[in-house]
Amino acid sequence: MGGLHKFMSWDRPILTDSGGFQVFSLSDMRKVDEDGVTFKSHLDGATHRFTPERSIAIQENLGSDIIMAFDECADPYDRDYIESAMHRTHRWAERCKAAQTRDDQALFGIVQGGIFPELREQSAEFISSLDLPGNAIGGLSVGETKPEMHAMLEIVDQILPENKPRYLMGVGTPQDLVEGVRRGVDIFDCVLPTRLARHSAAMTDSGRLNMMNAKFARDERPISGHCDCYTCQNYSRAYIRHLIQTKEMLAGTLLSIHNIHTLLSLVRRMRQAIQDSRFDEFAAQYLANFD
Amino acid sequence: MGGLHKFMSWDRPILTDSGGFQVFSLSDMRKVDEDGVTFKSHLDGATHRFTPERSIAIQENLGSDIIMAFDECADPYDRDYIESAMHRTHRWAERCKAAQTRDDQALFGIVQGGIFPELREQSAEFISSLDLPGNAIGGLSVGETKPEMHAMLEIVDQILPENKPRYLMGVGTPQDLVEGVRRGVDIFDCVLPTRLARHSAAMTDSGRLNMMNAKFARDERPISGHCDCYTCQNYSRAYIRHLIQTKEMLAGTLLSIHNIHTLLSLVRRMRQAIQDSRFDEFAAQYLANFD
Repeated sequence: MGGLHKFMSWDRPILTDSGGFQVFSLSDMRKVDEDGVTFKSHLDGATHRFTPERSIAIQENLGSDIIMAFDECADPYDRDYIESAMHRTHRWAERCKAAQTRDDQALFGIVQGGIFPELREQSAEFISSLDLPGNAIGGLSVGETKPEMHAMLEIVDQILPENKPRYLMGVGTPQDLVEGVRRGVDIFDCVLPTRLARHSAAMTDSGRLNMMNAKFARDERPISGHCDCYTCQNYSRAYIRHLIQTKEMLAGTLLSIHNIHTLLSLVRRMRQAIQDSRFDEFAAQYLANFD
Repeated sequence: MGGLHKFMSWDRPILTDSGGFQVFSLSDMRKVDEDGVTFKSHLDGATHRFTPERSIAIQENLGSDIIMAFDECADPYDRDYIESAMHRTHRWAERCKAAQTRDDQALFGIVQGGIFPELREQSAEFISSLDLPGNAIGGLSVGETKPEMHAMLEIVDQILPENKPRYLMGVGTPQDLVEGVRRGVDIFDCVLPTRLARHSAAMTDSGRLNMMNAKFARDERPISGHCDCYTCQNYSRAYIRHLIQTKEMLAGTLLSIHNIHTLLSLVRRMRQAIQDSRFDEFAAQYLANFD
């Protein structure tokens, strides 16, 4: 179909994941060996085989701008398994690099190692040594605590090269973004803004609002008074709630616009704060404002 | 909440119905008397009372641009009932006119009379005599055959004033629009384009396409090759089908854009054909092209 950009009619950057995390999320329908993974689709039960080479071939065919190395994501607390999965992830990352045939896609390696400092250190060293255009931090935001995640970020922050983008996978909330940037992260991805929107929740700089709440029935204010998104510039909380109550699809659309804008506005403000050498002050103020 | 225009953030014309048809659609939950209608909400079972005066007061409060007289819509084949409902609709139309307190809303009367030529004639005469800014044709598209609907339109077409807009309520398909304009109708309303979109159907100038159909899985063409809507300019049939299969809300949005555009484009072409004195030719060609 001419690749993702054409298929989606989207001419801005696209990042595709390798399938590693997606296979992990299938838990008991997968079988991992040194060469790759065999798994059953949760959609139709069909059996599929993924290897590093196959993942790269698919991503080359999709034509995304950033492609991810095929990694093995595992239970972050199982040290023995985590260690062997990490080494396999390293070998697979080398195979992914060797399998690339296009030179117009940025391949990112993925640091694994669960919640174990010495493994994260080893993994960050190894992935950095591959000298890929960007480096990702995987296997987090999968059940560990926030302090554990922050500790891991602080370790890899010391090791990953500063001149290449660092991408924290599957994160997250506005607070997570601030805590991530504070620890050197440049790129995030998460379904949260649109998933929350489909479930009637609005993200704001002081917490979430459940727009279904009866208290918004006659609230003429926008979701957020200082938000300049299309939704807040044109519609009241009462109207959004009305759309939800009457099951109008427009509710999900308007809330998605608002939630994505909220995150984009946050990263824009963080970038400006960094340029103005006042990031710590910004972060402290921003986080203090949350419910 | 400041009226519908502000609530919806919509600064173009808005037409509101009086509630007459909506009460009719509740069938056994309503009781009609000379003064008005008592009915139970199908949403929460609460009892409501509508009268011509109350309907006008609500529509004045909503602030729509075109407001409708409160009418009684009835089974189009029950002659006795239709006749008494028609006379009541006439008395209610007079009460609606008398109840208006704003002078910036166009009140339209509604012609009733089921499928009975002499009743339609009487009703068109009476409603015209009220000298309102516009006239509507109600009680059609409720179960009668197309030839019956067309016969009724031809009768009222002879009677309603030519210098005021004529509005055929609850219609409809592209073919219905052509048949309506052929018989003097200027305005239509219908949920069809968006309802079909939510059910994965695309309207085209040669019939409907069920976009869920597996045959579109690799179809790189737009829904309609000569359509200049946003959807057809940017997306393939395969992409629309993919969105439907993966239950993405965007499918309904893109199909709504396309379907509404299809009807707007049709009325634009009909207006041009009328101005060029070639409407009959246009209508014949357009209708012959349908499956």
